[in-house]
Amino acid sequence: MDNQIFSALLSQARKQRPLVHHITNYVTVNDCANITICAGGAPVMADAWEEAGEMAALSSALVLNIGTLNSGIIKSMIFAGKMANERKIPIVLDPVGAGATRFRTESCRRLLDELTIATVKGNAGEIGVLAGVDSKVRGVDSEGMKGDPVTVARTFARNAGITVVISGATDIITDGERVLLVENGHPMMGTLSGTGCMATSITGVCAAVSDDRVIAAATALAAFGLAGERAAEKSRGPGSFKSALFDEMAVLAPADLLAGARIKYG
Amino acid sequence: MDNQIFSALLSQARKQRPLVHHITNYVTVNDCANITICAGGAPVMADAWEEAGEMAALSSALVLNIGTLNSGIIKSMIFAGKMANERKIPIVLDPVGAGATRFRTESCRRLLDELTIATVKGNAGEIGVLAGVDSKVRGVDSEGMKGDPVTVARTFARNAGITVVISGATDIITDGERVLLVENGHPMMGTLSGTGCMATSITGVCAAVSDDRVIAAATALAAFGLAGERAAEKSRGPGSFKSALFDEMAVLAPADLLAGARIKYG
Amino acid sequence: MDNQIFSALLSQARKQRPLVHHITNYVTVNDCANITICAGGAPVMADAWEEAGEMAALSSALVLNIGTLNSGIIKSMIFAGKMANERKIPIVLDPVGAGATRFRTESCRRLLDELTIATVKGNAGEIGVLAGVDSKVRGVDSEGMKGDPVTVARTFARNAGITVVISGATDIITDGERVLLVENGHPMMGTLSGTGCMATSITGVCAAVSDDRVIAAATALAAFGLAGERAAEKSRGPGSFKSALFDEMAVLAPADLLAGARIKYG
Repeated sequence: MDNQIFSALLSQARKQRPLVHHITNYVTVNDCANITICAGGAPVMADAWEEAGEMAALSSALVLNIGTLNSGIIKSMIFAGKMANERKIPIVLDPVGAGATRFRTESCRRLLDELTIATVKGNAGEIGVLAGVDSKVRGVDSEGMKGDPVTVARTFARNAGITVVISGATDIITDGERVLLVENGHPMMGTLSGTGCMATSITGVCAAVSDDRVIAAATALAAFGLAGERAAEKSRGPGSFKSALFDEMAVLAPADLLAGARIKYG
Repeated sequence: MDNQIFSALLSQARKQRPLVHHITNYVTVNDCANITICAGGAPVMADAWEEAGEMAALSSALVLNIGTLNSGIIKSMIFAGKMANERKIPIVLDPVGAGATRFRTESCRRLLDELTIATVKGNAGEIGVLAGVDSKVRGVDSEGMKGDPVTVARTFARNAGITVVISGATDIITDGERVLLVENGHPMMGTLSGTGCMATSITGVCAAVSDDRVIAAATALAAFGLAGERAAEKSRGPGSFKSALFDEMAVLAPADLLAGARIKYG
Repeated sequence: MDNQIFSALLSQARKQRPLVHHITNYVTVNDCANITICAGGAPVMADAWEEAGEMAALSSALVLNIGTLNSGIIKSMIFAGKMANERKIPIVLDPVGAGATRFRTESCRRLLDELTIATVKGNAGEIGVLAGVDSKVRGVDSEGMKGDPVTVARTFARNAGITVVISGATDIITDGERVLLVENGHPMMGTLSGTGCMATSITGVCAAVSDDRVIAAATALAAFGLAGERAAEKSRGPGSFKSALFDEMAVLAPADLLAGARIKYG
């Protein structure tokens, strides 16, 4: 593909510095905050029901990540999400561990039912569970879905009216019509906790500055994948890789994305 | 100024290794714990109401940071704060995001009303909101206050009987009479989530070993700023900067502060 | 000792990649997740009572760490622990700060009473408190126990039917009969928040793949200590040490443990 559109979107994010409200887990929250800044956004984390809606109203995107969910957090997600929907602020959902426990699966279904989600981004197991196909999730890791992931994602996206992202060696992004495949990334990213959550945060940054959810998600995943590739070259293990990943994401220029994004139609 | 007093205070912190109890947010809490150690303190984090008061009573300073507040945490802050007040243990408050939502603003006012706070440290927007002047906060970032920050800080400090710190390119510290300006620091610090929280934790360490709140805050901000300057020289982005920031804070010697603190009267 | 058994256990962990469920504190949770991966395990963190039991049932070990406990978390620990006991899944308990507040001490006693704990790992002060000898804990740091730590640990282990680990310059591990002493480690580990928690997570990984609790704990502490020794050589302060610690733990091969573990009978 012509990478101009992805490069322009990253440039736009850096220029606008959109406020991205997160209701997310306490495991990777610091990494989400820092990668949001590296991508060009301004992160804010606020999960009390007393302020979740008000903070969402101030923001340009809302990221919901159920990594360490509880019933109070789901309540705040609903409050924030309803406010976001009212104001046409895009919501990006990361259904971490959906399928591993009933509580995670049901909470995701509730969020999908009660809110208008712009983009849902998970691994094959999580998306398979939400799409209603036979899938397996172990803890927060995918053990795969039954069927062709592109077909499952496309059908789910069309039926739900959502942009669906399946992360993996090749990321699949579809709104039910268009399918984009992102081939950037590096196996080192799988050795670090939180790279999935970080990718979701960057997707929030990109969704904040573009109404085209497919292009926004592709930009986010290509940029983060490219940063991961470059960080891997400079690392000898997950500790140095993590440090390099933030560096590379921060210094990644729109021109780098123009040259280095590997995105094709699926 | 003669930097001897700041240098001596840092030396004292390293010698006493004061226990600094934190009730703080889950976004930057790990960084706060580590920077407290680097500065010479021993961090402890405990936010359950069942133990917040007892832990505060064991400590030499109490840091209250509302970054991810909720009503339970505010309750624990009040419990811990009352115990700290009883024992004459200094409380340092970081009103993260005050002004962004009513819940944050009102929670800060409640803490200021019900507790005797030694030092409040925030950005211009947050302090402006608490001081009652026209100010703007977007998420957790300042968009400035109306009026001269030194005058606002001094008036607020005098009226409330609190030492007030406005962090920024030049940090302003005042107890309503004296005004100190700290010029250490580096723009890279603004690219990393949590540097504001970390500065507050170090202020807690310094307040634990000195009754002079103005000198304690100036020592903390100059030391942390100097560490930031040195870390920036060794970094290529926010990941390597973060790593270097802890290194530099840990190896920063009182003699370095003697030579490198840039503090003047305002 | 012949290090073959420790080396083989690390090899086994890397091969099986056991799921290790954590109910842990929000200060060091990210470090626990990452070190679990480095050691060969797959971490999952889930503390809502609605899913704690179900997640535990999927796992190969359960790590309970009371670093930032509250009554809801203790309830979830009991739920998860009972499920783990039913399924014969080993539980590793880190009684962070036991002895500092009554709430911590009593919560640990409750966990020890209501659950069958496989291994309890703490510093001298924490273990002393639980063993019922005169001990002192300041925040989360040990200020020592009265009496000989090996004798205290052995008596406590025998009476409670638990494997007891006292971390320190020399780690003590005993099931009441055998005593192993691990001499790996480096003073730099004490300058970083969370190394104790990380050691507990690795103990969980090792307990997941071996029924011999003493050998599992010794493998974990020797491997982590060895990684710490190597990381220290490459570091100039706690920031670079942290990064190197994850790198070294990830690249540590079973052969390295064969050559470098310093474990002896006590």
